[in-house]
Amino acid sequence: VDNKYALIVAGGKGIRMGTDIPKQFIEVGGKPVLMHTIIQFLNYNSEINIVLVLPQEHIDIWKKLCAKHSFNTKHKIVAGGNERFFSVKNGLHYIDDKNSLVAIHDGVRPMVSKLLIENSFNSVKKNIGIIPTIPISDSIRYVETNENSKHIDRTKYRAIQTPQTFIVDEIKQAYNKDYDLSFTDDAGVFEANGGKINLIDGNVENIKITTPNDVIYFDLFLKNKKLI
Amino acid sequence: VDNKYALIVAGGKGIRMGTDIPKQFIEVGGKPVLMHTIIQFLNYNSEINIVLVLPQEHIDIWKKLCAKHSFNTKHKIVAGGNERFFSVKNGLHYIDDKNSLVAIHDGVRPMVSKLLIENSFNSVKKNIGIIPTIPISDSIRYVETNENSKHIDRTKYRAIQTPQTFIVDEIKQAYNKDYDLSFTDDAGVFEANGGKINLIDGNVENIKITTPNDVIYFDLFLKNKKLI
Repeated sequence: VDNKYALIVAGGKGIRMGTDIPKQFIEVGGKPVLMHTIIQFLNYNSEINIVLVLPQEHIDIWKKLCAKHSFNTKHKIVAGGNERFFSVKNGLHYIDDKNSLVAIHDGVRPMVSKLLIENSFNSVKKNIGIIPTIPISDSIRYVETNENSKHIDRTKYRAIQTPQTFIVDEIKQAYNKDYDLSFTDDAGVFEANGGKINLIDGNVENIKITTPNDVIYFDLFLKNKKLI
Repeated sequence: VDNKYALIVAGGKGIRMGTDIPKQFIEVGGKPVLMHTIIQFLNYNSEINIVLVLPQEHIDIWKKLCAKHSFNTKHKIVAGGNERFFSVKNGLHYIDDKNSLVAIHDGVRPMVSKLLIENSFNSVKKNIGIIPTIPISDSIRYVETNENSKHIDRTKYRAIQTPQTFIVDEIKQAYNKDYDLSFTDDAGVFEANGGKINLIDGNVENIKITTPNDVIYFDLFLKNKKLI
């Protein structure tokens, strides 16, 4: 069996939260959001290798939080870049285990299911990366301008989550190419380098925690998982 | 000034809620969701004419709820059809005031803002219907199959809400055409009859209440609107 890595990217500055605490550090159910996220990967497999990418200026905060919460699980901490692309690239630099698999995951998605992590790793194949998607619940329109838009069939579109999972060597090669503004996720970088993407089902609770309501949602989730 | 109508469609059977109570009848903050929705239109304009479309088998339940909550505001109750198309069509049948305006709204969207209702009515023009949209927050892909999907630019797409607002005569003409399975909202019916649609900004809280978590979200909204 190949080694497995979780590359967890927590670059957010918390601007959208309307608070000084970056959202990955907000404590919910007694622990920072980011710690919940890491623990969920360990719940999936206690042997998984964790690489955590944080903005340089957050590394001390994180270390203090780990001390406060007696979070002693070994994990590699890497300083991020100005864009998500460079943060992921910096994290991949510390993974030399070329034939292993890496799941690249948003630090603020603590509700990722163990089943989704398992399916992600199990579905990766040579030159095929795996990303989770869920149906879009709203009706949507394609919009040129407010006066020029058209109805589209929403069943043809799906919303993307993380983790996005790849063979380490392949995704590292993709991240060695130049940065392009059109890259919005790892799948895009992988495809730009000739890789193929297969979709699997995400889990609907696996939202990005970006607003105060998302924090409440997560708190309720921890208190009563049947709610969701 | 033309008369204004709110045609509120509450056809849901509540199947997705995992409960026997249709979601429009669930009490939040002391009142059924549907009553909150109607009251919000009255908050916008106490003179607005309310036409409420309910499944035949829910009409007695609704009347009992109105008695229980001493909800005495005059409103026309109309029995719905098997599809939303026929429910709206049945409701429009009871609006004879041809040059007036009608806002067609989901009964389970109680968090519609007064500003959105106002902007909707004020933006309608001859042969132009108005629908509210909000940005799509997730990355999305166009999906043929799990093995054949592609990244798209989500800034070109927007999620649709209600109310969808029209000149009564024009939307009635559109609803006189035959039903087509491709109709997913009033805008689609209107466009199929040659009408044009302009978009305005919706309000993000104006979600459809379809899950237990949505109910919690609405409860928190009522308790502390600053949350959202």
